Formats: sequence, structure tokens, C-alpha cells
Amino acid sequence: MLQSPPAQPGMREDEIDTPALVLDLDAFEYNLDRMAAILAPTGTKLRAHAKTHKSPVIAQLQIARGAVGQCVQKVAEAEILAWGGVRDILVSNEVVGAAKLVRLAALAKIAKVAVCVDDASQVAAIEAVAAAAGVRLSVLVEIDIGAARCGVQPGPDAVALAKLIAASKHLIFGGLQAYQGSAQHKRGIEERRKLIDAAIDGSRRTVEQLRQQGLACPIVGGGGTGTFEIEANSGVYTEIQAGSYAFMDADYARNLDGTGALVSTFRHALFVLATVMSAPHHGLAVLDAGHKAVSIDSGMPTLWQRPDIRYVSASDEHGKLEYGPETAAVKLGEKLRLIPGHCDPTVDRFDWYVGVRDGRVECLWPVAARGGFS
Amino acid sequence: MLQSPPAQPGMREDEIDTPALVLDLDAFEYNLDRMAAILAPTGTKLRAHAKTHKSPVIAQLQIARGAVGQCVQKVAEAEILAWGGVRDILVSNEVVGAAKLVRLAALAKIAKVAVCVDDASQVAAIEAVAAAAGVRLSVLVEIDIGAARCGVQPGPDAVALAKLIAASKHLIFGGLQAYQGSAQHKRGIEERRKLIDAAIDGSRRTVEQLRQQGLACPIVGGGGTGTFEIEANSGVYTEIQAGSYAFMDADYARNLDGTGALVSTFRHALFVLATVMSAPHHGLAVLDAGHKAVSIDSGMPTLWQRPDIRYVSASDEHGKLEYGPETAAVKLGEKLRLIPGHCDPTVDRFDWYVGVRDGRVECLWPVAARGGFS
Repeated sequence: MLQSPPAQPGMREDEIDTPALVLDLDAFEYNLDRMAAILAPTGTKLRAHAKTHKSPVIAQLQIARGAVGQCVQKVAEAEILAWGGVRDILVSNEVVGAAKLVRLAALAKIAKVAVCVDDASQVAAIEAVAAAAGVRLSVLVEIDIGAARCGVQPGPDAVALAKLIAASKHLIFGGLQAYQGSAQHKRGIEERRKLIDAAIDGSRRTVEQLRQQGLACPIVGGGGTGTFEIEANSGVYTEIQAGSYAFMDADYARNLDGTGALVSTFRHALFVLATVMSAPHHGLAVLDAGHKAVSIDSGMPTLWQRPDIRYVSASDEHGKLEYGPETAAVKLGEKLRLIPGHCDPTVDRFDWYVGVRDGRVECLWPVAARGGFS
Repeated sequence: MLQSPPAQPGMREDEIDTPALVLDLDAFEYNLDRMAAILAPTGTKLRAHAKTHKSPVIAQLQIARGAVGQCVQKVAEAEILAWGGVRDILVSNEVVGAAKLVRLAALAKIAKVAVCVDDASQVAAIEAVAAAAGVRLSVLVEIDIGAARCGVQPGPDAVALAKLIAASKHLIFGGLQAYQGSAQHKRGIEERRKLIDAAIDGSRRTVEQLRQQGLACPIVGGGGTGTFEIEANSGVYTEIQAGSYAFMDADYARNLDGTGALVSTFRHALFVLATVMSAPHHGLAVLDAGHKAVSIDSGMPTLWQRPDIRYVSASDEHGKLEYGPETAAVKLGEKLRLIPGHCDPTVDRFDWYVGVRDGRVECLWPVAARGGFS
């Protein structure tokens, strides 16, 4: 059951039904342009991560500004993008089980599709579905360069797996997946740099050992919104996989730059618009957006341009606001913009983006890959 | 975009594509029967909360066992239930804004619909839409009996609001909404009892003051899975609003009874089935179900009948498992059942329940009100 669109083009922002996922189009376009401008002189390409936006419309806007394609985490996301016209898709993740792999091979008929492995048994499984479908799939080796999650160790283990891929008739060795997720939200630039320097070292060493075996790496991919400038200038990474940069969230906004100031590279473009549904007394108000509407895995949302009001706790459908005696009473029916703590899972709560500009609704875009986690 | 069904009836459980929302039908039916058996001697009725299950199919199974109707939190949930044949629905929450209220009034043409208020301006707003639609709506006064969220104070404030409702031509005073949410997960029975005793006192006092004004309370509603037996035996509450009892989750399973043992009234019936997608070394494995598939707002999921394996952290699409040297290696491709930390928002991540019995898929039911938070 699709949610009804909460607005129509032409409406004023305060007429949007809530909770709604609101995209400030000026800020969003600024972010896309800014990323393109930062990456242009480095020669490193953007392969934006669609796990953030889950939208072929947004993918195409990124590609129009020079992105080489898209990353996804799941086959279901790859399907939605391919069906929406995206022609170069990397599943930056392992895909396990024949039921999913046959869907991936089927997609390779209409798009260039790549996927990651970190286990030899997976190479054989992917070769089997590619052979059956009569397609060639690009396969990257995921290396664990510090996050201690998926991936083989850099160096010989990765080389062995790459050779297995290269020796498979229906597979192409696509390069290295080298994303350091645990570095992205370290607050200090020096902490982030230290972790990414180690990631770069591991990646460089592996690329070199592969070269010694006659294997080139078309892709060395990684880099999120918190660290991408380091990877982009490394001379090793060829593709950046940032996603959140397009929207920004409250958690990324807490990162600091080299001067100790908050990083201000990108603007907040994504909001959850919510309505005050109860205002029992001065100092307390309750919004109609709890953690079913705004993800709290990376902390509570903050209020857009209202530092005097705090979103203190979320239940499923309620968000509790507190504010001091100096603040004018928050009124029943008032609509407020929340900056989500974490944009990716917040987007996944909604069926529709409501694009606004100059206080008016300009467009509605479906969150087409919402819930696509198979 | 609906998710594809992850299974077909007749499949073995290990053939279900993952992540999937699996309902153990034997345990689920046990829970429904158990609740009916506990409430029968009290005379208190069940109005099960559909914010847990979001499914007209499950609502009807509860009604078939004696539930008088359903609670919901949102108009969108009320719509899905009414369209699915449920004829008595209480929105146990405030509904603010004409866009939503007109939808509620429209529903009253096909179902008995009630809603809550905690502000006089809302009485006028609801009267206006009811008059325009030519329907009568039942309106309850929400009282704050300890949760400090929505609701007016018990006593005179509540009575004043009730009189306003009763004096409105198209409204019926429906009674009191008196849910104490913050008591549900207190671990000790004495802590829970103390909070609910206060809730009962506030409710009883308000009922008495209303009676003195000639106003009867057809409904005094509240009570969740953690405390419902106290409300049901209070002589004041007429309806219990438990939802989680049907499924149980890891958080409710941490509550203690009077002997200090874990409460064992209901059985775990709801699981997220997940696949091991990476197993880098003994002691570490990664599941394909992160917090996009299993809600972590009330803690990490636990593993069904595998206390030797811990789900230690969740990212969007990955769940990290750790286990000790004495445990046999967790294998790539292995499927494991997770008990969600919190059932309600976990259900909201999925389009389908996969009902299993004796190791086989018996049915698929849509999570029809998924994402219905408008």
C-alpha cells in the first residue's frame, strides 16, 4: 500500500500534510554541484551511493553532473535503479544466495552490474548464475581496511580472490571495494585522516600486489561524506561512494574541520516536516513524527533554525519537544522542520519526496527503492 | 513499490528469501488465545492495538476471539482497517489538521470511529468536520496519568473538555484515554504496579467527577502488554489496548514477574529471518539484516534459541554477530531467526508477514498499513 502523496505541486510548504519528507531543492542542487566541483580537479569519479536516496530521479541528477554511476547495497535497489534507466551499478556489498544472484544476473542484460565478494565460494556461485544467464558480471574484492565487518584482509588474501575471479569465464575482475565506514563520523579531522590513511595504505599495497600478478584495478572504490576528500586526493582511489552529501543530516553536521569548526561543505537539504499535535503547557510540545518517521539510530533529530527547541525523545509516533521560558509558546497545529539524525534510514520511512523551493511545492518524487532490502 | 513476497506457501522456512518477517503461527495463536483467557474472567474487553500489527487480517483474528475492535495511532491506519472490514476503531491519539480530520469523518460512514482530544480547540475542529460530513464521531478525552506526553490532567480539566464534547451536536463523549506508556517496560512488577496504581487513581477520580456531572464513560481505555492485568482487574478500565502481546519482542521479554523470573505469559511469535552474508573468521559473522530491517530503538535483536551468539551492532543493512571459540563456526549462507528488540517498528519495515508452521510457509499476509503515519 503506497502512502498517499502528502502534497501537490503549487501548494505552500505549510499546506503539506505531515509527517512529510521535504527536500529543499536549492540546497540539494547546491550540494550536487559542490561535490562535482570538489572532485573535478582530483580526477576521482563520483559513484554516488543510492542507499541514501533510493531514487532513480536523484541518481539521474547526479549522473547529469558527472557521476559515473551508482552504488547500492542490495539487489532490490539495483533493480529499481536499472528499471529507472541507470546503466552502471555497483552493489558495494556481498550478495549471498541463488535467489538473489539470479536477479542480479538478469539485470546485467540491461545495465552494467558489478558486485563484491569476500569469500571464494561466492566466486563460484556468481560464475554459475552468470553462465546460466549468458552474461558477464564484474566482481570486486571487498577488503577490510579497518571497519572489521565484511571483507578479506588487504594483500595476499585479496590477490588470491582476485585471481579466482579473473580465471572465471563469465566474470571480470572489477577492482577493490575499500570503504571505511567507521571513519565517517569521527568528529575530529585528524581521527578521520588517521583511519583513512591506513585504508589508503592497505588499498595501495593490494593494488600494487595485484599489478605484480598482472591484474589491473579498474575500480578502487570507497569514501563517504565524512572523508571523501582524503580518498579523492590519495592517488589510489578511483571512485568516491558518498551518498549523504546530497542531503546532509544532524550526525554528519557534528563533524569538525581542521580549524575545529563544524564542517560546512554541504547544506542541510532534507527535512521531516511535522505538526505539533499536543501542547499541554509552556515548555512541552509533542510532534506527530516519532521514530517511525525519523530515524534515531544516530541520535535525535534537531530543529531547523530553532536551536531554542530540543527534540528530547521519540516514541513510535510521537516526538517530544522541550523549550525554555524565554521561547514563545509552541502552538498546536504549528509545522516545524526536523533535520534527521541519519538521512538514509529516514528516507526509507517515506514513499515520497516533496521538493520545495521558495516556500512552494515544486515536485513530488517517489522513494522508489523504499524497503528494498532483499 | 511493494516488496516482492519473500516466499510462497509450501516452501520450507530455509527457502524464504531474507530479510523476511516470519510469524510462527502456533505461537501467535497461542498468544491470542492466552489474552482472551486472561481477560475473560475480568469482564474487561480487549481493543487490541493495531499499531503493532498493521494488518486487517490479524485484527479480524483478534476480533474473532472476542476483541471489541481495534486501536490505531494514525488516520492512515484507521483507513486500512476500515477498508479491511474492521467496524469499531479508536484512534487512541490526537489528530490535528483539517486534512486528516476530514478523512476520519469520511470513515465514519463505514465504521464506528472514535478519536482523542486534549485541547478545546480540537473539539471545535472535529465538530466542524463531523457536521460537514453528516456523521457523529465519538471523542475521548486523553488524560495524562503519568507519561507526561499528550493529555490533560485528570480531574477538572478533563471534565471541562468532556462537557464541551457532550455539548457538541455531532460528537459523542466516548470516555477516557488513559494509557500509561512509560510503565510498560519497567522491569520489576512492583515498579510497574506503582505507576499503574497512580494511573488507576487518576482515572477513577476523573470517572467519578464526570459521573457527578451526569457524564458516563463508555470507554476507559489503556493498558499495554507490560501491565494490562493490573488495569484489567482495576474495576475502572473497561478496555485493554495491548498490541505487542500477539508477537512479543526482546524488550518485553526482559520484564520480570513477582518472583523475579522473566514474565512468560506470551511466546515469541515474530522473527526476522536473516542470512549470514559474510563470515570473515571464527567468532565474527555478518547478517543481511541491519537496522533498516530490524528496529534497534529498544535495543539490539537477540538470536532465537542461540544464546551463544550475540547481535552486537547494526548498520543500515548489516548486523554484526559475535560468538565464542566454543561455538561451531557460523557459516556463510546460514539462515538465523532474530527476535526484534521492538516489534511495532520492525513490522513497519516489511510489506509481508510470512506465516510458518512446522517448518513450512503456510500463508503470506500483507502489512497493509505499513508506513501509514499520516
